[in-house]
Amino acid sequence: MAKQMENIVNHCKHRGFVFQGSEIYGGLANTWDYGPLGVELKKNLKDAWWKKFVQESPYNVGLDASILMNPKTWEASGHLGNFNDPMIDCKDCKSRHRADHLIENYYESKGEEKVVDGLPFDELEKIVKEENITCPTCGSDNFTEIRQFNLMFKTYQGVTDDSSDEIFMRPETAQGIFVNFKNVQRSMRKKVPFGIAQIGKSFRNEITPGNFIFRTREFEQMEMEFFCKPGDELEWFDYWLDFCHNWLTNLGLNPERIRRRVHDSEELSHYSNATTDLEYQFPFGWGELWGLASRTDYDLTQHAEHSGENLEYIDPQTNERYLPYVIEPALGADRLALSFLTDAYDEEELEDGTSRTVMHFHPAVAPFKAAVLPLSKKLSEEAQEIFQDLAKNFMVDYDDSGSIGKRYRRHDEIGTPFCITYDFDSKEDGQVTVRDRDTMEQTRMPIADLKDFLQEKVNY
Amino acid sequence: MAKQMENIVNHCKHRGFVFQGSEIYGGLANTWDYGPLGVELKKNLKDAWWKKFVQESPYNVGLDASILMNPKTWEASGHLGNFNDPMIDCKDCKSRHRADHLIENYYESKGEEKVVDGLPFDELEKIVKEENITCPTCGSDNFTEIRQFNLMFKTYQGVTDDSSDEIFMRPETAQGIFVNFKNVQRSMRKKVPFGIAQIGKSFRNEITPGNFIFRTREFEQMEMEFFCKPGDELEWFDYWLDFCHNWLTNLGLNPERIRRRVHDSEELSHYSNATTDLEYQFPFGWGELWGLASRTDYDLTQHAEHSGENLEYIDPQTNERYLPYVIEPALGADRLALSFLTDAYDEEELEDGTSRTVMHFHPAVAPFKAAVLPLSKKLSEEAQEIFQDLAKNFMVDYDDSGSIGKRYRRHDEIGTPFCITYDFDSKEDGQVTVRDRDTMEQTRMPIADLKDFLQEKVNY
Repeated sequence: MAKQMENIVNHCKHRGFVFQGSEIYGGLANTWDYGPLGVELKKNLKDAWWKKFVQESPYNVGLDASILMNPKTWEASGHLGNFNDPMIDCKDCKSRHRADHLIENYYESKGEEKVVDGLPFDELEKIVKEENITCPTCGSDNFTEIRQFNLMFKTYQGVTDDSSDEIFMRPETAQGIFVNFKNVQRSMRKKVPFGIAQIGKSFRNEITPGNFIFRTREFEQMEMEFFCKPGDELEWFDYWLDFCHNWLTNLGLNPERIRRRVHDSEELSHYSNATTDLEYQFPFGWGELWGLASRTDYDLTQHAEHSGENLEYIDPQTNERYLPYVIEPALGADRLALSFLTDAYDEEELEDGTSRTVMHFHPAVAPFKAAVLPLSKKLSEEAQEIFQDLAKNFMVDYDDSGSIGKRYRRHDEIGTPFCITYDFDSKEDGQVTVRDRDTMEQTRMPIADLKDFLQEKVNY
Repeated sequence: MAKQMENIVNHCKHRGFVFQGSEIYGGLANTWDYGPLGVELKKNLKDAWWKKFVQESPYNVGLDASILMNPKTWEASGHLGNFNDPMIDCKDCKSRHRADHLIENYYESKGEEKVVDGLPFDELEKIVKEENITCPTCGSDNFTEIRQFNLMFKTYQGVTDDSSDEIFMRPETAQGIFVNFKNVQRSMRKKVPFGIAQIGKSFRNEITPGNFIFRTREFEQMEMEFFCKPGDELEWFDYWLDFCHNWLTNLGLNPERIRRRVHDSEELSHYSNATTDLEYQFPFGWGELWGLASRTDYDLTQHAEHSGENLEYIDPQTNERYLPYVIEPALGADRLALSFLTDAYDEEELEDGTSRTVMHFHPAVAPFKAAVLPLSKKLSEEAQEIFQDLAKNFMVDYDDSGSIGKRYRRHDEIGTPFCITYDFDSKEDGQVTVRDRDTMEQTRMPIADLKDFLQEKVNY
């Protein structure tokens, strides 16, 4: 599995999906840049999400709030007070560790699984002492106490570096939605139930990011807050859980690598009456892809209290006033991209004894929908015409370098579902050869049919 | 003109285009959030840019680099050393000012125009003294010396706040392209000339942001770096200048409100051999919309020197090695949105003596392409079917509240180009009434033709 991850990371670099951030300067810890194909993949996933969650939805509208927000937002949300990692230092070698990870890794090395995420500091300290857990760097058991480390990136706005100008880079997009609840509801005359969807960057100063683009300090979120009548929330929770699950499988993600993990009463946040993670089986194990939480009226209550604004909704039929309850499906765009990269990646042995690397993306997700290949450079004018025409509607590539076989392999490697070859017969009969990436079968097809053919394939 | 700006800002708030950021907490200076209609407008503009600059381009590919970069990037680019505003303090009232603005406002109050942006500090100080410029807050002439204020937002990555962990939020997206030049060129096997295009957030700790979304500390850029052979750069400069200009007017921006401002030799950066701004006539005056600069090999030279990497391109035909020259068209997505909002906004007197507020967006840019209006709630089932069907391809609204006349006005106000009314006859003849926002003319049209009709209208 580690090998598979390594292969995927290498493939992503060499085929233009994902590069190390600031690579020519030796990188910057855990930053990654999306190359020409990665940016298309991620754009396709974001567009597919927007299409189903906003454009086609009879309930939802979109939003794009700022990354920089008034710091009172983070007081209300609890991020200033509670958004901390438990840190522990080794007094001997001065190395620093996340206490919960230290403990979990200790148990893992014994072949046991233990989740201590969220336990109070004194209980974590007790475990470290009782189990005689030692420093993974130097082997000493001479640790400091556990201390809090706030995960928000801090900066200063304006011309002085004093705390009056201290602001934070948002650690989640959700709060931008809550503070705009009234503005959106009023200006769009929305009636409950309705949702507000948003895509944007968030930042968390994680002590131990890792696993490629799975956990990074800078990441992109696709979050929705769905506002409903108190009492209706568990029904809507089930609705959106199914909706999200179906969205993933409709886009071709392998259902066998998706599971639902229900949070039990111990793990549930104090304000939540239901939380379920959609997990994906990454090469390094099961990891959270989509977190769905029924958050009651906790967030709106907090913001109403801290801002002094009345955030109640008035039902236009009954004149009833209430704070809506909230269902939040929160998805990370980068780990979503990683799940689709992992799922698509395959090293295949072919019947003729050769092998190929192939990315089995659903056409809606694939960076290029098709590649136009002139059989000979003598045919480039006509092939270019087809390319230009298709490019008005689809992301397509034009490739005239090397043998057709080599070009097929290259497009297998980047997941292009269809290769369209223009040959000397095409001039006569107006037909091209369409080669399918997955079946490798070739079909003769009129040039005039290509658009409809591709359009049908990219539907999901 | 100030009135016009005020009307637009109000309209944007009340109709769901742009809200003040963190409004319920009294805002955060000069942050703005895009509401449900603003996010669609901006998305349409970004998608239109991506379509013409990446998807349909035979030259260009996309990229999405991180906001957080290795700080050496900013040493190489000069942002750490030179990216400063000149600050001056009043010793009496302690107010702080941008020295260049202080001087320019002084001349403006005398009815003169003077540009001192970029002058050395001692020359600015000389002007302040010679002209006896006084503090706009208290009237005193007791100023400090002018000092530098770096415009980059600073933060700390990792667990300590010491300078070894100091990083910056990027002040422009361009450098993310330059540091990835080799990775992109190699992985995509691109041959010069080619371009790399990117959309993303940048941050500048401006002392005096303002004019709504024209100048904000957090903003979104659409930048392209086009790499060409030295000697060919001025030809490509002209090509992209026309290309950008045409892109704006094809999307419906009024050509009379666009002008080209050529930088003369004094204003040109030392590394540039041609720079032209495409300016737009905003309500507050002409402002830079799109900056086009021929940057020679300055950026790649800087990064090659600072990183020690060989960034030369090897021509596959001639084996010639060289650092490509660069043309950079840099566009701000937020001021682009403002130009389209301004351009579209109109308060019209109608022939019948009434008036209406209308946004004359090109259909490609309009948040909703159409609204489906059932004449009576009894027809909602059939109208919903039309809505659901159109929503698969277009952003459309469904609106069944109030009289048809009121609904028309509401959609005029948000710039929906077509209102589709389903009436009792529609059940019989399968036709609907399509009302044009600009001409207010109504046409009877078969339901089956709606998709093709809208598809043709959104082309540009």
